[in-house]
Amino acid sequence: MVFSSSLLENAVNEFAKLPGIGKKTALRLVLHLIKQDNEDVSHFTEAIQKMKEQIRFCSRCNNISDTTLCNICSNPSRKQDIICVVENVRDVIAIESTQQYNGLYHVLGGIISPLDGIGPDQLSIEPLIKRIPEESTSEVIFALSPTIQGDTTIYYIQKKLSSYPLRITTIARGIAFGGELEYADEMTLARSISNRQPVDNYMSNNK
Amino acid sequence: MVFSSSLLENAVNEFAKLPGIGKKTALRLVLHLIKQDNEDVSHFTEAIQKMKEQIRFCSRCNNISDTTLCNICSNPSRKQDIICVVENVRDVIAIESTQQYNGLYHVLGGIISPLDGIGPDQLSIEPLIKRIPEESTSEVIFALSPTIQGDTTIYYIQKKLSSYPLRITTIARGIAFGGELEYADEMTLARSISNRQPVDNYMSNNK
Repeated sequence: MVFSSSLLENAVNEFAKLPGIGKKTALRLVLHLIKQDNEDVSHFTEAIQKMKEQIRFCSRCNNISDTTLCNICSNPSRKQDIICVVENVRDVIAIESTQQYNGLYHVLGGIISPLDGIGPDQLSIEPLIKRIPEESTSEVIFALSPTIQGDTTIYYIQKKLSSYPLRITTIARGIAFGGELEYADEMTLARSISNRQPVDNYMSNNK
Repeated sequence: MVFSSSLLENAVNEFAKLPGIGKKTALRLVLHLIKQDNEDVSHFTEAIQKMKEQIRFCSRCNNISDTTLCNICSNPSRKQDIICVVENVRDVIAIESTQQYNGLYHVLGGIISPLDGIGPDQLSIEPLIKRIPEESTSEVIFALSPTIQGDTTIYYIQKKLSSYPLRITTIARGIAFGGELEYADEMTLARSISNRQPVDNYMSNNK
């Protein structure tokens, strides 16, 4: 692209550094901002700048937070003895959006993936282990991706937790609601048959 | 989406105001920025803020510019007597990127489209008409979208220009390079047959 304005060019190049944003999309976004009120553009840049400067990671659960302790950890109405272990912040947002979970979280910051050079030491696993006796945790729920890496991570952490009197669970895996059997992969279909549930149970969950 | 951080939520909401950016994409972009250095994020927000504050429209051709007169209009090595009429800044960038055009531009800021409430008065047509005698223009090239609105706009402006001794042209329309005949729409194919060119001419253009 050949620009006749370096102000425009700089802004487009900055947008194009974002993942999944090409030069053409970047140009479209910048031209959109040019048409907006100065105030709206200031809101945009200030929200990002402020977020970047002030955001931190919760000292307890490693979730993204405005304060030292995130507002999930500091909420006394949440069950303090259940920890849901997730890979990243996106997963916390996804689970919170279901409004079905009322315990605490622990954000690992990734999953064990030797091929990508990510071992247990790069993840927030030690802090998780420490929390168990400190918080008298009674259940740890793994909500990790149903992949080999996810399973490896569960296996690794489960071993470390074996000395504590804990219930260790994982979220149910199976055919997605509304999904069609014929399009499910064999692994998922095989697992969902071996993990079949009594119909009574299923119906009462749907009530 | 349920956020546990209002700093994160604000930044995501601001990104999601951009056209074509949904909440999930916005979250992905914001989480990317969180992982970047403070300095990189400052470059991003400053480039946008500076662009928004300082950018203007060229007083002659209405192109986006860093200065009163854009650097195409103020470049003495460009042909001063040819004006290429385009709809918007994106089209200037597209044509400049071909490096095949060495004249000036005039950015209309849209095309005549009564259904969208855009008439000639909302466009930079009067300033274009004024330029013709002032700049002793010898040729006006229309590079507008090959749509009914584009053709209407050409027709309207052409009428206004009829009193000047001008060559008025439009960019060639036809089958795109690499395009297959069978997938071309009837209108394009019909026009490209009626506007057929001598093969000699075509071959010499390809040299």
